[in-house]
Amino acid sequence: MFGAVIHAPGDVRYEQRPDPEIVEPTDAVVRTVAACVCGSDLWRYRGLAPVPRPVPIGHEFCGVVEAVGDAVTVVKPGDFVVGGFNPSDNVCPVCRKGATANCINGDHYAGCQAEKIRVPQAEGTLVATPGMPDDDLIPSLLALSDVMCTGWHAAVSAGVGPDTTVAVVGDGAVGLCAVLAAVQLGAPTVIAMSRHESRQQLAREFGATHVVAERDDAGIAAVRELTNGIGADCVLECVGTEQARLQATGCVRDGGNIGMVGLPHGDLPMIDLFWRNVGVKGGPAHCRTYLPDLMEKVLARTINPGLVFDLELPLAEIGEAYAAMDERRAIKSLVRP
Amino acid sequence: MFGAVIHAPGDVRYEQRPDPEIVEPTDAVVRTVAACVCGSDLWRYRGLAPVPRPVPIGHEFCGVVEAVGDAVTVVKPGDFVVGGFNPSDNVCPVCRKGATANCINGDHYAGCQAEKIRVPQAEGTLVATPGMPDDDLIPSLLALSDVMCTGWHAAVSAGVGPDTTVAVVGDGAVGLCAVLAAVQLGAPTVIAMSRHESRQQLAREFGATHVVAERDDAGIAAVRELTNGIGADCVLECVGTEQARLQATGCVRDGGNIGMVGLPHGDLPMIDLFWRNVGVKGGPAHCRTYLPDLMEKVLARTINPGLVFDLELPLAEIGEAYAAMDERRAIKSLVRP
Repeated sequence: MFGAVIHAPGDVRYEQRPDPEIVEPTDAVVRTVAACVCGSDLWRYRGLAPVPRPVPIGHEFCGVVEAVGDAVTVVKPGDFVVGGFNPSDNVCPVCRKGATANCINGDHYAGCQAEKIRVPQAEGTLVATPGMPDDDLIPSLLALSDVMCTGWHAAVSAGVGPDTTVAVVGDGAVGLCAVLAAVQLGAPTVIAMSRHESRQQLAREFGATHVVAERDDAGIAAVRELTNGIGADCVLECVGTEQARLQATGCVRDGGNIGMVGLPHGDLPMIDLFWRNVGVKGGPAHCRTYLPDLMEKVLARTINPGLVFDLELPLAEIGEAYAAMDERRAIKSLVRP
Repeated sequence: MFGAVIHAPGDVRYEQRPDPEIVEPTDAVVRTVAACVCGSDLWRYRGLAPVPRPVPIGHEFCGVVEAVGDAVTVVKPGDFVVGGFNPSDNVCPVCRKGATANCINGDHYAGCQAEKIRVPQAEGTLVATPGMPDDDLIPSLLALSDVMCTGWHAAVSAGVGPDTTVAVVGDGAVGLCAVLAAVQLGAPTVIAMSRHESRQQLAREFGATHVVAERDDAGIAAVRELTNGIGADCVLECVGTEQARLQATGCVRDGGNIGMVGLPHGDLPMIDLFWRNVGVKGGPAHCRTYLPDLMEKVLARTINPGLVFDLELPLAEIGEAYAAMDERRAIKSLVRP
């Protein structure tokens, strides 16, 4: 079969790889229907993370089960499935607490930008749709493998609910999904911080009540003006840079919460957050925990997170899928074998 | 009138001071029935915080209202009252969110270890008992001015509830009150970490289900063994030192929460907490928010946080009240004028 392999920064190739096989009884093999490129894949593409040797890449997919190991009972060949980017057994003591991203027996994929993939911990990881979904739902189902769950996780981690004001820092695919999550979780005020018109528009489509285009102090002032002068109850930090962190701490009100899903750079100045009673929580999304609910919402056409994909290419053009995101010509690239 | 003045590390004197007066229409003057010494008062006593000039000291009290300003309607002369250590107006936009410790118009006291005190923002700060309380309830009512609210705040900040396992780091008065808070909030497993027998005993009296005497790695291992091998859902960090922070991060499970009420020293290693999905929240307690509920519990004799006072002295012996705590001869000293 064919799949993507990163050889070096800027060099992702479509090339022949061995067909994946059932190795453990808990495995499944899935024929990919769609895959995509993650902002975190760009770290290596941009040379911000090392590429010591050529390796298969990608961790987002949806597809059809081809084969399952003896221990897999919840899905069978022919099922259409989605799996989160962080395979989990869904039964260990940590998973039982809902923290499936931190599964004691957690695993990872060997490259999902491929025609076929091996899914470890398939029993705990894969969730099947009731039947074969309509083709126009594929992008939104694919979004559940990472970006929508991650935006949801930011909102859940910050305690978003019907009584909360929310500001979202970051207008990438995760930030936009965080807007959608906050709206779905009932927040009456959802402020998207974005300078890009097309992303502002999508944020509004997802239900953002306000858009703030300013950054830094001006952005903080604008958010405060929209939140009774005190800042947002919940700030969803979907970037991870120092600038984004400062934006988040500036926009949150005293006693509020920051939901953090951008990989943080640098330590937190604890003493300031302490005096202000600001909470911080976040990390990799508990995909398996959120998947059933979010899949139901997608199938009911209540949410349409697939709108974050503004470029679709054949898997064979995976190099261009990366380049378009790297050069910010696309928010997020979807590829189909 | 007489009150405590700190002159230098190790030098707290009982001396004559001007009688407090109504300055703002929102003020009250309270005749102190009891006051006490806080762990945070010891910073200056121990030379860990500067004492640039002699200043009145103390921020915990209960007493009887003597006079009120024109704007004060909720209490009247003769009322028995408790006020949190951080006066708040209880009506600003931040207070309305429940974050009364961070009141926009927050204020502070000029020394509560005194016969009389001026209470700024009295309307928002003071809570009166229905009548004159029994004398044996005085210590518990006094505890509501700081230490019990602070323990409660640790538990609330960490999301303690009926389904959570809890470990408490620190066996000072705040830590012991945090044990009591966790039990009251319904946690079925509450682990007190303490090496001192008398404090272990009080923790058990407050409802701790387990006591762990070990520290560092051994302490972490013991907590994990008591929590299904994964660590506690909620860790209440009631110390603030680097060692206590390491203990807390070691004892909390992945996906869990640390409630932090010990003034933190140093920054948080964010990347580790991020991968582990561990939340951190805390700061000065929202006393005014918690006071009515906790006062009801004290008056109903449901809780008895006053047990943390194991030394009672006349206010005139305030120097000894400090020395006993400094030398760890007392958990917490109560003084009466």
